[in-house]
Amino acid sequence: MEVVQVLHMNGGVGETSYAKNSLLQQKVITMTKPITEDAITKLYCSKYPDEIAIADLGCSSGPNTFFLVSELLKVVDSVRQKIGQKSPEYQVFLNDLPGNDFNTIFRSLSDFQNKLRKQLGPGNGPCFFTGVPGSFYGRLFRKNSLHFVHSSYSLHWLSQVPQGLESNKRNIYMASTSPPDVLKAYYVQFQKNFSLFLKCRSEELVDGGRMVLTLIGRRSDDPSSKECCYFWELLAIALSDMLVEGLIEEEKLNSFNIPMYTPSPAEVKYEVVKEGSFNIDRLEVTEVNWNAYQDETDLSDAFKDGGYNVAKCIRAVAEPLLASHFGEGILDEVFRRYREIISDRVSKEKNEFVNVTVSLIKA
Amino acid sequence: MEVVQVLHMNGGVGETSYAKNSLLQQKVITMTKPITEDAITKLYCSKYPDEIAIADLGCSSGPNTFFLVSELLKVVDSVRQKIGQKSPEYQVFLNDLPGNDFNTIFRSLSDFQNKLRKQLGPGNGPCFFTGVPGSFYGRLFRKNSLHFVHSSYSLHWLSQVPQGLESNKRNIYMASTSPPDVLKAYYVQFQKNFSLFLKCRSEELVDGGRMVLTLIGRRSDDPSSKECCYFWELLAIALSDMLVEGLIEEEKLNSFNIPMYTPSPAEVKYEVVKEGSFNIDRLEVTEVNWNAYQDETDLSDAFKDGGYNVAKCIRAVAEPLLASHFGEGILDEVFRRYREIISDRVSKEKNEFVNVTVSLIKA
Repeated sequence: MEVVQVLHMNGGVGETSYAKNSLLQQKVITMTKPITEDAITKLYCSKYPDEIAIADLGCSSGPNTFFLVSELLKVVDSVRQKIGQKSPEYQVFLNDLPGNDFNTIFRSLSDFQNKLRKQLGPGNGPCFFTGVPGSFYGRLFRKNSLHFVHSSYSLHWLSQVPQGLESNKRNIYMASTSPPDVLKAYYVQFQKNFSLFLKCRSEELVDGGRMVLTLIGRRSDDPSSKECCYFWELLAIALSDMLVEGLIEEEKLNSFNIPMYTPSPAEVKYEVVKEGSFNIDRLEVTEVNWNAYQDETDLSDAFKDGGYNVAKCIRAVAEPLLASHFGEGILDEVFRRYREIISDRVSKEKNEFVNVTVSLIKA
Repeated sequence: MEVVQVLHMNGGVGETSYAKNSLLQQKVITMTKPITEDAITKLYCSKYPDEIAIADLGCSSGPNTFFLVSELLKVVDSVRQKIGQKSPEYQVFLNDLPGNDFNTIFRSLSDFQNKLRKQLGPGNGPCFFTGVPGSFYGRLFRKNSLHFVHSSYSLHWLSQVPQGLESNKRNIYMASTSPPDVLKAYYVQFQKNFSLFLKCRSEELVDGGRMVLTLIGRRSDDPSSKECCYFWELLAIALSDMLVEGLIEEEKLNSFNIPMYTPSPAEVKYEVVKEGSFNIDRLEVTEVNWNAYQDETDLSDAFKDGGYNVAKCIRAVAEPLLASHFGEGILDEVFRRYREIISDRVSKEKNEFVNVTVSLIKA
């Protein structure tokens, strides 16, 4: 089975979800909160609607699945209390691929709703939750049925591995040694996916509806820049070492590529303008350290090990891809080596994920 | 933990779904198809809407979860082709309790959609599926967001065991030996639940929206009539036998009651009229033999055993209730005895489930 199927194709055995490291995810949502808060406030204050339909695309399943929703509802409730408006009713669509663990989300919903009711106090409108399985590179909702779309750390995933990466050999993503046709193939796939995403959402959002998207990206114009490719380059080193030791096959490594694209703000802007359905309200870049815990105190030594953290984080997203391509047998060994490599680099240099966040209004 | 929590309370460990025997369920949907077909056709032909939002309440998880939806879509598509209309877009909400296995539904969705596309042919509008966890004895959807509501073999379940059943002793449901206050307590709980259900749905349905509900019920005015209570009376016999043999405790049996109500058509009508949001289009009674397979040929001997079938069917719905009250240890023994008792009766007399189906229009 091709990696492409693991990530996105409906109906395949290997369907999975947009797995995320939940602490990193929480950090990113917190970091981009000013933009999200600004967008939902403007949306609410433009019309004071009786109902707000919110979709979180690539919601995953974990301790932070409800974190974003709870932040959004607190913002709206605080504004509507200040101006003495009656609370709107909320409809929340939680979307991820069909392989996502929706059962766990649904079974923890009641606890979350009780907690939210206490936090918001009386007078807050009901909030209806639904789970929506499917790829966001296709229509998921009725026409004109959404007011607010959010997606964090999912949209850098492509719908498939780009065609024509044969010359990428021992690289597993774009790298400084990738030939130009590889970089182009990646970019073409990104353009195709991102513009389709915009088109689908423009049909689903009401006029004036808003969308806040955060992707892993880069500042540089160079798509093979270290700032966005380094964590995959280090994984490629671990895999190449295993190839040298005969633990994996050359052909297998040569045909393995990560279906991801980490765009620059300019590339995001270009697609939005070209597609034409949305106006850009804000377009910002933030960074989050590879070791998302580094500001925290009172952590055990294991958690203070930057290699441990970033390796764990990358493992969460890369494991299904590696398992379906190389088999499950190699996983522990790959990530043991990866952690060692990362620990070494983290101690010597500061590395960050660059996040591109765009806040859009349906024109 | 009380039985009530097993069935309906959100957040409890023992949450389950409206478990159903899927072959019986398919038979009931097929049997009530003329009413459902009539309702969806009238709905579609009244306005030829661009979109139809359908909710199936108590959808369960099994081979027939999509059966009803596929029947509805075929009807609409056939009508719209005849009159040369463009297909509407469909939004399907699949609802059940949070303990239902939505993961299995979502993972089989893609196969179902491919099959449906082939059956309906080109030009058929997209159909968006969402899962909605929660009790239908409360709001589940936004105001005025539904066009068609369906519920089959779920609404006879009450939100809790009625209060004040202390005098029901060795009965586990209403029975000919139940005192009048027990019958009254059951009826009061039904009225409370059913009117709340109607109120919630009336807020969620658009004006002119339709609802087709099928419950296990009875023809008789007597709520303890054999036609609706017999399958529980026989289970009570199995439990009483085990009590006599010291296999279960008297106090345990005395405090066990099934949270169900099997109304007459008159009782259903009375609640609809009293609640006031709906007009009745049709109100009909059908029967399905306890042995739903009895018309079938080419079945193995095991399947021809009526005791086997109805015991299996009742086990599907009663097992979670019995397990949470008596513990899992007694289940196999209870249902071995129950099957024996049922086999004996089925060979001597014809027994049927009586179904009450009501087709409603939001006034």
